[in-house]
Order: sequence, then structure tokens, then C-alpha cells
Amino acid sequence: MHATVGKRIPRLEGVLKATGQAQFTDDIVLPRMLHAAILRSHIPHARILNIDTTRAASLPGVKAVITGKDTSGRKFGVYARSADQAPLALDKVRYIGDEVAAVSAIDEETAEEALDLIRVDYAELPAVFDAEESIKPGAPQIHDVPDNIGGKTSVDVGDVEKGFRESDYVREDRYRTSWQAHCQMEPHIAVAQSDSSGNVMMWTPNMSPFTKRHVLAQLLGLPDSKVRVCKAYVGGAFGGKSEVYSLDYCAALLSLKTGRPVKIIYSREEVFSTTRLRHPMIIHLKTGVKKDGTIVARECKVISDTGAYSSTGVMAVYLCCDSLIKTYRVPNVRYEGISVYTNKSVCGAMRGHGTIQMRFADESQLDMIARELGIDPVEIRLKNARQTGDVLPNGSRITSCGLSDCIRQAAEKAGWKEKFGKLPPNRGIGIACSTGRTFINVNPVSASAAFVKFNEDGKATLITGAVENGQGTETMLAQIAAEELGIPVEDMTVVAGDTELTPMDVGSFLMAATFITGNAVKQAAADAKRQLFETVAPRLGAEPNDLTADNRRIYVKSHPEKGMYYADAIRRSTVKGIPIIGKGYFNAKTEYLNVLTGEGRSSPTYSFCAQVSEVEVNPHTGQVKVLNTVIADDCGVAINPMDVEGQAEGSVATSQGMAVSEEVVWKDGQIMNPSFLEYGIPRAPEMAKIDTIIVESHDPDGPYGAKDAGEPPTHVGPAAIANAVYDATAVRLSEVPITPAKMLRALEEKKA
Amino acid sequence: MHATVGKRIPRLEGVLKATGQAQFTDDIVLPRMLHAAILRSHIPHARILNIDTTRAASLPGVKAVITGKDTSGRKFGVYARSADQAPLALDKVRYIGDEVAAVSAIDEETAEEALDLIRVDYAELPAVFDAEESIKPGAPQIHDVPDNIGGKTSVDVGDVEKGFRESDYVREDRYRTSWQAHCQMEPHIAVAQSDSSGNVMMWTPNMSPFTKRHVLAQLLGLPDSKVRVCKAYVGGAFGGKSEVYSLDYCAALLSLKTGRPVKIIYSREEVFSTTRLRHPMIIHLKTGVKKDGTIVARECKVISDTGAYSSTGVMAVYLCCDSLIKTYRVPNVRYEGISVYTNKSVCGAMRGHGTIQMRFADESQLDMIARELGIDPVEIRLKNARQTGDVLPNGSRITSCGLSDCIRQAAEKAGWKEKFGKLPPNRGIGIACSTGRTFINVNPVSASAAFVKFNEDGKATLITGAVENGQGTETMLAQIAAEELGIPVEDMTVVAGDTELTPMDVGSFLMAATFITGNAVKQAAADAKRQLFETVAPRLGAEPNDLTADNRRIYVKSHPEKGMYYADAIRRSTVKGIPIIGKGYFNAKTEYLNVLTGEGRSSPTYSFCAQVSEVEVNPHTGQVKVLNTVIADDCGVAINPMDVEGQAEGSVATSQGMAVSEEVVWKDGQIMNPSFLEYGIPRAPEMAKIDTIIVESHDPDGPYGAKDAGEPPTHVGPAAIANAVYDATAVRLSEVPITPAKMLRALEEKKA
Repeated sequence: MHATVGKRIPRLEGVLKATGQAQFTDDIVLPRMLHAAILRSHIPHARILNIDTTRAASLPGVKAVITGKDTSGRKFGVYARSADQAPLALDKVRYIGDEVAAVSAIDEETAEEALDLIRVDYAELPAVFDAEESIKPGAPQIHDVPDNIGGKTSVDVGDVEKGFRESDYVREDRYRTSWQAHCQMEPHIAVAQSDSSGNVMMWTPNMSPFTKRHVLAQLLGLPDSKVRVCKAYVGGAFGGKSEVYSLDYCAALLSLKTGRPVKIIYSREEVFSTTRLRHPMIIHLKTGVKKDGTIVARECKVISDTGAYSSTGVMAVYLCCDSLIKTYRVPNVRYEGISVYTNKSVCGAMRGHGTIQMRFADESQLDMIARELGIDPVEIRLKNARQTGDVLPNGSRITSCGLSDCIRQAAEKAGWKEKFGKLPPNRGIGIACSTGRTFINVNPVSASAAFVKFNEDGKATLITGAVENGQGTETMLAQIAAEELGIPVEDMTVVAGDTELTPMDVGSFLMAATFITGNAVKQAAADAKRQLFETVAPRLGAEPNDLTADNRRIYVKSHPEKGMYYADAIRRSTVKGIPIIGKGYFNAKTEYLNVLTGEGRSSPTYSFCAQVSEVEVNPHTGQVKVLNTVIADDCGVAINPMDVEGQAEGSVATSQGMAVSEEVVWKDGQIMNPSFLEYGIPRAPEMAKIDTIIVESHDPDGPYGAKDAGEPPTHVGPAAIANAVYDATAVRLSEVPITPAKMLRALEEKKA
Repeated sequence: MHATVGKRIPRLEGVLKATGQAQFTDDIVLPRMLHAAILRSHIPHARILNIDTTRAASLPGVKAVITGKDTSGRKFGVYARSADQAPLALDKVRYIGDEVAAVSAIDEETAEEALDLIRVDYAELPAVFDAEESIKPGAPQIHDVPDNIGGKTSVDVGDVEKGFRESDYVREDRYRTSWQAHCQMEPHIAVAQSDSSGNVMMWTPNMSPFTKRHVLAQLLGLPDSKVRVCKAYVGGAFGGKSEVYSLDYCAALLSLKTGRPVKIIYSREEVFSTTRLRHPMIIHLKTGVKKDGTIVARECKVISDTGAYSSTGVMAVYLCCDSLIKTYRVPNVRYEGISVYTNKSVCGAMRGHGTIQMRFADESQLDMIARELGIDPVEIRLKNARQTGDVLPNGSRITSCGLSDCIRQAAEKAGWKEKFGKLPPNRGIGIACSTGRTFINVNPVSASAAFVKFNEDGKATLITGAVENGQGTETMLAQIAAEELGIPVEDMTVVAGDTELTPMDVGSFLMAATFITGNAVKQAAADAKRQLFETVAPRLGAEPNDLTADNRRIYVKSHPEKGMYYADAIRRSTVKGIPIIGKGYFNAKTEYLNVLTGEGRSSPTYSFCAQVSEVEVNPHTGQVKVLNTVIADDCGVAINPMDVEGQAEGSVATSQGMAVSEEVVWKDGQIMNPSFLEYGIPRAPEMAKIDTIIVESHDPDGPYGAKDAGEPPTHVGPAAIANAVYDATAVRLSEVPITPAKMLRALEEKKA
């Protein structure tokens, strides 16, 4: 039906990346560029008494040394009210890795050497490393807030007490999830270049150049337009490159101080310990159901450990709550989540942000309820699954929903009927579901704009603020534009992700790039086409509305032989001096989200998925081997099925890692395994065989019916795998990752 | 009256340039970048029998060697029909410096070393170095055209024979002008970066990135959109960076061949010998006048030496003719100009292109006529001067004309009445006038487009394809946009001169940047303002048409207290997702110029100037010292008077150099003084004191009444100075430059 949309089109930047020619931030090498390094606290909690940078500053080759005193004192955070992190410590350090000073020098070695010459006098303070300890009276106070609680979300819908009274069966469990690292192949890095007019250009991997610019400009005390965030390819973000980090700020400030370009690159250890991790959560979940499995009431308390600073802390506990509401129908819910400070590394956004934790709890418990009631786990999910037209408690309407199809197709493809309860010993099968949101309206900006410009040779340039993080955004957006214009995608060039050159964009958070930016791009292309039709119509003896275009040719709908190729049309238009630039913008019809109460229709649409995984548990080693995973993803219409599959496969890997192998090991607030050698990200041989099913619900508001891709598939691995482990062993693990040690212990406890 | 237009605003890029931070092409350093060098012919005319690159290619560090055989065989030239120059010689070499092969290597030294290892077998051919010799029967044939004539312009208006019959006085002279070098501080340079998708990015100083891209793409056999010409600051162009040169092509082809970035920079000798020079011309001019000095008829024959290739050859002879017609009224004209090949360096566009030669002849002869008839040279000019409303033979109408004012004001400021004929011995005063054209319609494209985008902080970005060559284009265009928007110019950022990011632009030829691009920018700003007014009007309870803006504030015209600051307005619009981008385009109402006949109303308006110079001739050394120069420039309205003055001063320097000191010395087709040490570009102590008078005629079609700046002031130095020399010595020099040797010889001849 479509010429370009829905086609398996290879990435526009594929050859560049495969041949090493794509420019990542570390490929930026500028004349007279300095290198910088950051001095970090080796103490989890302390007051800074004095910092002496004299010796460091006088080391030959050192060009500048900065500490908190050189900063404006402004702090950053995802919300203004929780802006509690300074780019360089002002008074205290709150975790091992907290930034204390930064040095720029002629090379990395000199900068590192200078760090050793900085003397910091600390007054050590007692530290707390556990969230439940942290909220106890008398715990060390990390920030100036009571009980170390950085934020709280409370949601109360319906009448929970009544719900539980009317339930036939009530079950209560406690679940626990752990930290997880993003493990982007590209470490965090920033290159800043200031000029003597006080402008700062930044190259830094990011998910939204406009957000980075705004926060950075505020920290630096500059107007937004003095800071330019430029495009470089991003070697993986996964939520972990959305915020400004100390290195962005330090690179900019050091460049302003020295008048020279400055590069900072984090070591792998710094990426693990000082950027962001996934929030570990403790989830108390109580559910009441009817005999037939219909969910009647739920009550939930969540303690989320945000580490030393807030970052997205309160949003994570909101998203956790949101996830309890939007996959299955539930008339009565009470939820309370708190974000708690500890003297540990900071947690923030990561694919499946706040949601994967709740999916683990919810889907594990639902599985047990089904078993208790003698209902097939697939059936209980179908019974409660959200449907098109459902209205969520916050007023959001589910405009398209393929959840039931996902459940059925994943179960069928995985051979659920043949396998569930019928596999040989130590083999098991499990299912879990989830719901994604295409967007979360928490910014003042909830819109994207895009431009489409015709070149003189009839080809077109798409100008968008969206960022290619590896997810295929540029190709997908180029497909949308090409489809609308009626030209092949190879005629498209994409200019993206540069605050000076491109229009505002919401950023590649969740999957706003498809739904919001995609709609803006479609409109921009339609606008460009309309403008061109107006210049062409008189020549074809037709009205603009009578024209259409495909295959690089504009023609009269009723007389297809009367037409003109794009290249000719543009050339004629150009000769007349009429440049064709189409403008599009799209504002998701959403409301601002109140994370404290969950109010606000903050997502325009929702995507869904179901995963069925089959595992084998080695009873001697405790090793859980995930044999295969079927993932069914309701992404709306797949603009590029290859990219949807790629996203799904990456998501499955991330969530399998969280389920069985990825464990952050701590000792007194210090991460003990901050390297790819020691941290258990799944490698190819450990990965399950993956089958991806694309379930295409046509979203009425999405561009060509698309919603998003790959977010919900991140959510379901821990639950699907834990459920399969139960099916294999009759042992319920209520904590992930299910490491061999935990599995063995659980097996032994069961025996005992 | 205006807040920004007409103000002496310092250059936006001034601080960057003054502090060395502005990025010129040589500042581009890319990872893995190779350096290239070009092997050139040391013989003025020869057939190439064989090129052996084996030894060069095997030198360690050499990455690629290319010759004409590696090219597509396509040739380039300003007109398709005179495309006679290959980027690397195909069969013959035609001058000393002709490109034969190019080498890319890990560094410049290795590339140069490799050149020595290339063996070229030549069959030498007889050469010709003089244009009058070249058109004689039996002269060596340089190209496959009869009589070595590369192009011809013939114009016949009125009845010349009748005109001469009706004249009271007829005078016939022969004038001769010489070569001149542009002497840009920045040598020609190119950096090319290809990628494995076959795209080529080019940084190369240029006057129109779109023209460079188009020609380069054609030579490389690529569609235009595969070639991107990126912005770098330009260290002087003066017409000499408009064409594609061998280095642009070789950098691109070597980058495509090696997959690595390639930089080529010309030595100063290469810039002098192998880019472009000003055309030397021999001008036979016959003029008939009435007793009162009214010009009745003119007949002119011009032989222009284009060197080994056509370049702009035929355009130069057309412009020479054009110059004979547009300064003074003349009812009957017959003109024939030929562009002749010689085995010398190639001539092309340079400020005053084709015009300065004719001004020297015309103004020298008019001076003699005035003296013969006993008319003051100022008066004869005023009598014949073009006036607003005049229609030129090609149908162009002079829409605004300050020529008479220029003549009067320059004469008055210089003390003409007190000085003419009254100065002490060896001191003299002379006057000359000229006319510029804001544009010359020879491209298929005669239009510019521009975009104005609002940033979220209320500041604006101007996106234009125009190039800042040092003339102040970016500041001037930013002033126009700021004026139209009602914001200060410091709120403007300019993105310019990048074929991927900016809309089409005619290029900074002549002064199209002011008139054509300036109009496009004004429209774009007006369009952006209109869009913003539409979003603001409802809030202010007004219609969009009721609003106006200044000083960063939008308000209701009738109720100035009801208003909103830009920053607030933009922020509100942004929140709604409505990006503001204004689009403007302007097509000069011109016709395509037929250079062969002079037909076509090819310029939308004309600018004018008059120069009065005072000289002192040293009778012992022959040295002509220019004491002071008054230049009156009718630029329309001066957008930025400081830039108009800067342009005028630069023009006066160029034309003083051509008049008295800049001489290209040849020996057997070889330039003997290709360096700043030996070539006589005027230095500060040699420069006349300059007084610039801005004569503001308000052009009805120009942006804020502006036309252009600085082009006509280039034209008049040689004539004004030669006329002053006559006034000082009663010796008429009919050849420039008036070197001490020529002056002494003339003084001696006069004595004899």
C-alpha cells in the first residue's frame, strides 16, 4: 500500500557506522583542544572543609582548575523543585564518585596527574547505603529533607477497602529489584568549544539537544541561544544520556575559562559509578481478585532508592504506579511510592524506567494468583487486559490496543498450550505483559517541529531536532517524509539534532520520536508538497488539490499522463526564486503530568507487548538459562519493521540481563564490579533465541498509524523469566536478578 | 528613523576574527586527514605523451595518485559552451602551471616528494604570449577554435556613422591595461571529506556555495545533493574564489579514492600563477562629441587576453562594453570585444571585472576631450551623467541614480575648483566616475531565499546561503532582519553559506548579497513576524495587522501599553508546538543576459561613484605618489555605513594598486614576481589618504532603499590617477600601471 512506510529499509547511516566513518563525539578533534579530568570523592559522605588547588594549578601543562567555588552555585535536576545536584560539590560530598574539582590540561595524562596534586580536606559523616535504613529515625541526613525522602507519589482511585472486601481472593507479596547499568558502548563524553563572543558549542551524546542546551545554559547563567548543542552520533543512550552531567558542565566552563576547546571522556568506571543506574525498588503489592481472576483492587507501597541525588527519582515512582494501572483493568487502586536518598551512586532514567520494577511484581503476583485459582496464566491476562477505548484513571483514553493479540500470538508462537506445565523437569515457560507510553508530558514543551526543504536536484532535506541514538530515528523519519512526498528514501538527507540548525524537538524520550516528531515530519513534508503543487499546478493545467505524487513524479490524479518530475518542478520553482520549505509541528494532546498525584493525561497513546520465555534451570549450579523468548510488540503500524525488531531484540537483552545476570555489587557505597569484564551484561552465547512478532494496531493519531517501538519489550523479561523459573522449579523468586547463588539458595530452601 | 539599519554596527564575527578564533578552511583539521599536492606543467604549451606515476605511487606514505585519466574527462568553465578547462590536463598543457597530476599522502612533504617522482613525457609545442600575436594567422593553436578567439561580444546601438558625422569633435585613442592579482591574504585551499555512502563534504573559500557545489558535482558526476559545501570564513575573495579550481576537484576525488579527508593548500606562487588574474585589455576607443561636450557616438574595439582558458573571458568583454554605456548617456554605440587565448595564466573575475579597463579608457579619453574643448572635466561629466529614469539600450531602467551628486560632492570635498590647473608643478588632480550593477543575470538562478527562525529565548536565527567574504554580509543581513523584527542585532545569530543547511542563494557576486539576498532576508523576517503576530494577537485582544514590534516588544499600535515581549511570545508559541520560521525569497526582475549581444535587462538596479585623486609625480624617479583620494559612493541607503566605508577603502586600494604599483612581470609565459615581496600591492604607507562620502539615493526596490557597496569605487582609480598625472605633468599615460619606468620614459619622450 505504502511505497516506503512499512518497508525494511536499511539505516541511512548504516554504512557510515559499519565502516567507522560516522562521527561520534570522541572523533571531534579540534585545534588547541585541551583534555580535562574530574576529581571525585573517595568518601561516601563528608563535609568539604577545604580544597587546595595551588599545586595542581602550577603543574606545567595545566590550563585551569575549577571547584564548586568557580560555579554559579546553581544545581540541576529533572524537576526544578528537586534540583539538588551541583556539577561540582559545593559543601558536601554524598557518594563515592561525587565531583569535587576539574582540571584542563594539554593532555589527559597531565590532567590526571594534576588531580593527584589537589588536596581536599574532608570531615567524614556517617553514611547510609540501604533505602529502608535511610528512612528510619536517626539515619544520617543526606539532604535537607525529612527522613531522606526526596519525593512521593500518592494515587488513590476508587474504593480500595471496598474492593478488597468484594474480592474472593486476596494475595500480598513483597518484591525487590536491583540496580542495573545502561552499559552504553560509548562512554559519556563532552567536547566544548567557546569563543570570545561568549558562545559555547557542545558536542555531547544526548537524547534531546534542546533539553541539554536549556539545562546547561541555566547552569552556566547564559541565555539558551549562547549555547549550541551540535550533532554527533550516539553510541547508545538507553535513557542514560538524557541528563546533563558534570562533564558537560565542566567542559563548558573550562572552555570558557581557557578560551580553548576542552574534551572530557569518562572512564568505564566513571560511567558505571557516576552517571546513572536503574532504581532498585522494594514493592509491597496486595491484589484482590474475583474467583474468575478479575482484578478488583490493588494496594501498593514502593520504596525506590534514588542514591545520593534526586535525578528522576519521583518520576520513577510515578511511572511505577502508572504501570500498575495501564496494563490490566483495575477499578480500585491505592498506591504510595517514595524516592529515598542513600549514599550511593545516583539512579535515573533507563529504558523501562520505573516500569520494569512494577511489571516484575505485578506479573509475578498475577502468575501466582492464576495458579492459586487454577486459571491458565495466559487466560487471566486476557481476562484483565486493557482494550481499545478504555479510559485510565487519569483520563487518558487508550486509542488503540493490541495487548490481547500480543498475548495470544506470543503464546501460540511459543507453543504455550503444548508446553505450560508439561515440560520436563527444570524446564519451564512463563509469560508477562506490559504497556508503554509514547510520551510523558513533564516538560513545558510537549511538541516537535520539523522542516522539509527541497534541494535544486529534486531531492529533499529533512531538518529535525530529533536525535539518532541507534534506534533508527533518522531513517524512520526520512521514511515518513519520503512517503508523504512520494519520493524514495534515498532522495532524503537528514539534518538532525543541532539546536542552532534544527527546530525544537521534544527529544527521544520514550518513543516520542515516532509519535510526536513523526507527526511533525509528516506535516512538514505535506506542507512542502503543497507548496510545490501550487507552483506546478498552473503548468499542468490543474488545481493544486487535483495533484498527487509518487515515484518522484507529480501528476494530475485524473490524468496521470499529465505530470512532471520533482527535479524539473523544483528547478522551475528555484528559477523563479521560490524556495520550497515545508513546516510541520505536532503537539501531543496531553496534559501536564503531576507526578505527585498521577493526574494529567500525559501520554497521547499507549503501546503494548507480551513476552513468553522458556528457561532451563541447572539444579546443581543454580544457573538459569533462557532458551528462547517470543516477544509480541504492538507498536502501531511499523514504519520500518527491521528497526522495530532491532528495538525489541535490544529490549529483550536488557531485560534478560536484569532478570538473571546483571548485578551491581556494592561494598560500603563503592561499586565493586564497574567493568564489562565483571558486570554480567548478556553476551551473544548467553542470549535467548528471540522471535519478534509485530502486532500492528493502527493508531488513529499516529503517523501512518505508528505509536512507538521497543519500550514495552524492555519491561517484561524479569517477570516472564521468573514465572518460567517457577514453572520449571516450583520456586518463586521475588527478587531479581536471579543469580545462580540466589537460585541455589532458593532450591535448597525449598528442599528444606 | 530606523533602530538598526543605517547604524555603524561592528561586525558580528569581528571579535572572533580579531582574536584568531574564526574558523577558516585551514583551521579544519580532521582525523586521518591526508595532504595533497599538484604537479604542474613547467612548459607553456605541449602535448602530453605519457605520464608515469609508478614510482610516486609506491613511495611510502603516498595514498593515491591521480591524473587526467582518473577524471571523468568533463571540463569546467563559467559558461557551458566555453567549458574548456580540465581539472587535470587530458591531452595538452597550455600554460606554465597547468595541472597534470595530484598526489595525496600522509603529509605535505611526502606529497611534494612524490610529485618529483612522476615522469611526464611532453612533446613541446610553439607558444604565444601576446593577444595581438595570438589572433594572427599562423599563430600556435591553443584550443580547437579559429584565430584563438574564445568568445566575442558585439553590440550595435543607434547609428554610429551618423553619430560621428553629427559630432563636432571626434577623438580616437588606444589604451592598454595589464594583469592584476587579487592578493587575498588567505591562499586557495580545499578540504574534502568523503564518506562510504559517496557523499562529499567540502570546505573551500567561496563566494557562492551553491555555485561551487553545482560545478563540482557535475565534474565529479554526482547529483548536487551528494556534495555539500560547508561554511568556513573566507580570507578575501575579490572575485577570485568564485570558480571551482583544480584543488577543489582534486581534494574531492582524492578523498573519494582514499576514503580519507584530504586537504590541499596552494602556495602563494600557485595562487598568483594558477588561479585567476585580471584580464589585460587593449582598447581602441573612438568618441564623437558636440562642442558643448555632449557625447554623440562611440565606437570601440577590445582585445582581452584570457590566458590559456576561457573562464569568464567573454563575460569580461561584455562587461567592458556595458561599462561604456551605463555611466554616460550615449545614443549611438558600436562595440566589438574579443576574448583571446594565450599560453599564459588564466584570467577571470576580479572586483571591477571587465569594467575597470573600460573606465580607464573612457575616463582618460573624456578628460582629453574636455581639455581639447576647454570644458572643466567635472562639467563634462555632469553634462553626460546618467540620471534616474534613464533607460539603457538593453532596456534596463535606472531606478535611482546619485551619480551627479557623487561628482559634485567628491569635487567639492577634494577642493576641485581651488586645485584643478592651479596646483604647483608635478602636482595634479583628476576625476573619474563609474557605474556598478547590483547583479548580473547569467545563471539559471537569479534569486535568493532566506529563513528566519525564532529560538525559544526570543532571539532569532537568520539562515541564508550568502557568504561572508569579509565584506560584512552577515552583519548587514542580520541588521535587515533585526530591523524588520524589531529586535537588536545582538539577538540575531546567522547560519550562512552551507548548501545542506541553508536555502539557495545567488552568491556574493557583485553586490547581489545586499539587493537580492537582503530583500529575501527582509521578507523572511517579515514572514516570521507575521506568524508570531498571529499567535500573539488573540492574547492582546487585537488583530495581527494591528500589531507592531520594536525594542524586543510586540504591542498594539493604537494601545502601546498592551504588549508582550518577544521572549514571552515565543515561549508561549513554542509550548503550543508552533515553531516560527519565516521564509523569504526575492527574484531580481531581470532577464537572462546574452553576453554575445548585450541583450537582456540583466541588472535590477545600478550604483554609481566618482573619485577625485590628487597626485605628486617625482620627475627624477618617475614615482607617482597618490596623496589623497575622495571617493563618493552612491550605494542606495547604507545599511551599515562602516561596512560601506570599509568596502570603499578596499576598492580604492585595489584600484590605486592597478594604477601605479601592481605589475605582473612575465618571462616566456612565466610570472617572475609571484610573491608579496616582489608584487607591488600598496601597503599602508603608500596608500592615499581616503575620504569616503556616502551618497544615499533611496532605491525603490532595494531593502530599506539599499543597492550595494564598494563595487564602483574599484573602477575609477586608474583613470582618476592617470588624469591627475596628466594634470601634474601634461603627460598622458595610456597604459597602466604607471610604473616609475613608464613615467620616466614618458617624461623623457615629452622633453624630446
